[in-house]
Amino acid sequence: MDSSWDDLTLTFSHTSMFPFFDIAHYLVSVMAMKHQPGAAAIARKNPVSSWLTAMLHCFGGGILSCILLAEPPLKFLTNHTNVLLASSIWYIIFFCPCDLVSQAYSFLPVQLLAAGMKEVTRTWKIVGGVTHANSYYKNGWIVMIAIGWARGAGGTIVTKFEQLVKGDWKPGGDEWLKMSHASKLTMLGSVIFTFQHTEHLAISKHSLMFFYTIFLVTAKITMMMTETSSVTLGPFEDTLSRMLFGWQKQFSWCETKLSSNGTGSSASKPVPDASQNVKKKHNKKTE
Amino acid sequence: MDSSWDDLTLTFSHTSMFPFFDIAHYLVSVMAMKHQPGAAAIARKNPVSSWLTAMLHCFGGGILSCILLAEPPLKFLTNHTNVLLASSIWYIIFFCPCDLVSQAYSFLPVQLLAAGMKEVTRTWKIVGGVTHANSYYKNGWIVMIAIGWARGAGGTIVTKFEQLVKGDWKPGGDEWLKMSHASKLTMLGSVIFTFQHTEHLAISKHSLMFFYTIFLVTAKITMMMTETSSVTLGPFEDTLSRMLFGWQKQFSWCETKLSSNGTGSSASKPVPDASQNVKKKHNKKTE
Amino acid sequence: MDSSWDDLTLTFSHTSMFPFFDIAHYLVSVMAMKHQPGAAAIARKNPVSSWLTAMLHCFGGGILSCILLAEPPLKFLTNHTNVLLASSIWYIIFFCPCDLVSQAYSFLPVQLLAAGMKEVTRTWKIVGGVTHANSYYKNGWIVMIAIGWARGAGGTIVTKFEQLVKGDWKPGGDEWLKMSHASKLTMLGSVIFTFQHTEHLAISKHSLMFFYTIFLVTAKITMMMTETSSVTLGPFEDTLSRMLFGWQKQFSWCETKLSSNGTGSSASKPVPDASQNVKKKHNKKTE
Repeated sequence: MDSSWDDLTLTFSHTSMFPFFDIAHYLVSVMAMKHQPGAAAIARKNPVSSWLTAMLHCFGGGILSCILLAEPPLKFLTNHTNVLLASSIWYIIFFCPCDLVSQAYSFLPVQLLAAGMKEVTRTWKIVGGVTHANSYYKNGWIVMIAIGWARGAGGTIVTKFEQLVKGDWKPGGDEWLKMSHASKLTMLGSVIFTFQHTEHLAISKHSLMFFYTIFLVTAKITMMMTETSSVTLGPFEDTLSRMLFGWQKQFSWCETKLSSNGTGSSASKPVPDASQNVKKKHNKKTE
Repeated sequence: MDSSWDDLTLTFSHTSMFPFFDIAHYLVSVMAMKHQPGAAAIARKNPVSSWLTAMLHCFGGGILSCILLAEPPLKFLTNHTNVLLASSIWYIIFFCPCDLVSQAYSFLPVQLLAAGMKEVTRTWKIVGGVTHANSYYKNGWIVMIAIGWARGAGGTIVTKFEQLVKGDWKPGGDEWLKMSHASKLTMLGSVIFTFQHTEHLAISKHSLMFFYTIFLVTAKITMMMTETSSVTLGPFEDTLSRMLFGWQKQFSWCETKLSSNGTGSSASKPVPDASQNVKKKHNKKTE
Repeated sequence: MDSSWDDLTLTFSHTSMFPFFDIAHYLVSVMAMKHQPGAAAIARKNPVSSWLTAMLHCFGGGILSCILLAEPPLKFLTNHTNVLLASSIWYIIFFCPCDLVSQAYSFLPVQLLAAGMKEVTRTWKIVGGVTHANSYYKNGWIVMIAIGWARGAGGTIVTKFEQLVKGDWKPGGDEWLKMSHASKLTMLGSVIFTFQHTEHLAISKHSLMFFYTIFLVTAKITMMMTETSSVTLGPFEDTLSRMLFGWQKQFSWCETKLSSNGTGSSASKPVPDASQNVKKKHNKKTE
């Protein structure tokens, strides 16, 4: 490509997240926390615990990657500026008189802008995670993918775990299984950036960051405009899963035979707890 | 102050916790564990697990601070003397014939003495935690506060989490929220010692330790004599919370308007799960 | 002993676990996971989560020991060969057409062979854990025992915790208490190898490994042939527990007096939650 284009992507990849993009990230995270039932009431009853929850929402990804790499989970607290920024955003969101911030945030354009900027920070986090993991384990590409994913999408896991411990949320076996659309996109990006970092992708990092960010933002915006989720990856996933896990369908005659006299495989023996799963599976098979 | 006073506080700040104060700490912790329903029965059914629980009760704070600083949580096991001391106290408390120790402990003076000595160890733990965290992060004052607090009061959190995992205890959303009186005092002390350590308080560490210990012990003793809890911090908290989170009350007219037509703020939209919280909040508002 | 015997044990202690013994370990672990209700259905619905669970089953011990020593829990991912090996075994077990692997595994001789080889890996893990812990803490023999035990038998704990978080399993207070027979044997081996490592046992490590492995394998095989569990350690445990915790029985007259007017000991005061425990205890006492 011509150098002007390179300059554009290069300058883009050098934009600092602080303060504006970080503010957008904290805003979206804390608003998501506030829309949980009873969050505002808890904030008045026990501000300390509400503040802790807000910190988990804002810095969850970093905390998870720290845990996975055996770094101090409190490391994010040493970045005083960001902690104070997030805290003040938490404060004005929860304690602003007349709930002005929530009302301002309830306008769609504001939400779109904030969400888009939050997606930009996601790219930066993934790249940071991949590079950081590589500094630990040379060519440990599985670790790089895992850390990039944890940095980018680990916040949801941390907050879910916090809700679980608090007893606000009882997992029904499936909640943990189905990844959200955002975490799928993050996983994809983490794989891409890892391959780029290990020089399996012949594309410069800054242009890759540019394209991936564009992709993330557009996907997010379209998802928010048309209240549909996981439109982008659906067919891709189907193909992949059919390639990897679907080719046994042609042997269904013997699986049905198995499940008829049920020997060997545990999934085909009708265990009470697993009955609905088995049913699901049979429906899948018959479709 | 005159040097004799300085000498007194200095010598006081140099008293070693081992063995007597540690013994008192282990005694109080294990007795608290034994008074949980069924603890004695479990100790006979499965001594190993009961011993593990006792270790968590005795060294919980250290374990939590180790986790938060990404140090080996087993580090406390390398201090063989203390582990053996705590183990023997666990043994005589649970397996002493005729339950002599429990009977001796049931006398109030013994309890007062043990509790007072345990509070002394709390000061030492806070100071140790703050200094230790500072050795990691220079001027990372938020981390210093957190680690000092974890060392001093983290035991309750660890044991609660252990009960949660064991299924002995179902959290009702609030248990984690309301901090115990001891942990509030520990938080206060952690803040004070952190400011002293970062030289924002013009007082020598040993005299600060002296005064804080006196404060802790007297508060604990008075709480035990008069079965009241959190007498000391009540007004202080009220003032603080009114200053920080109460000044929006004057705008209550618009909040009531909000909650009447309920736009924007989630706290005012009556979500079924949050109804009781919202009710609490409204009561608070109407008072 | 004559040198030929030494050579035999020495060569035995130098056999590498990779690939055959590792394969057996992964096979047994993943088959155990597949026999959980609904595992196969989940594998088709959400392969990613099923793969994660399989990894936890295969590398759980290593992960736990990493956590206890504050090493990155993801370290096992850097060993690409073993991860790919385990993943492919997970794949053929769950997605092999006609469930051939499960059917082959359903034959007893195959199970016996695989289980025996898995027990061999256990010895290697314990020795590795003890040596590794010693490299951290010189003469920290408690830590060495703990890490050796975690490496050898920690997988069950990790997987239980994973089920707990997933909500597949509600602990009834006792599940965590009663150690499995395998973990008891692992604890014994960890103690033995720690004493050998600290030169309290006058036996060479390789012959000790030989004898312990023989003991493990024979115990496992006999347990699988005769569907009895914990035959080997029963009397040993009884003697030990009677020595340590049973000698208070002779003072039962005062304990009964205590439980009659119930002062001091909490176990004798009939708390509703603890009633069944207390009942158990009384039965025990009366037996």
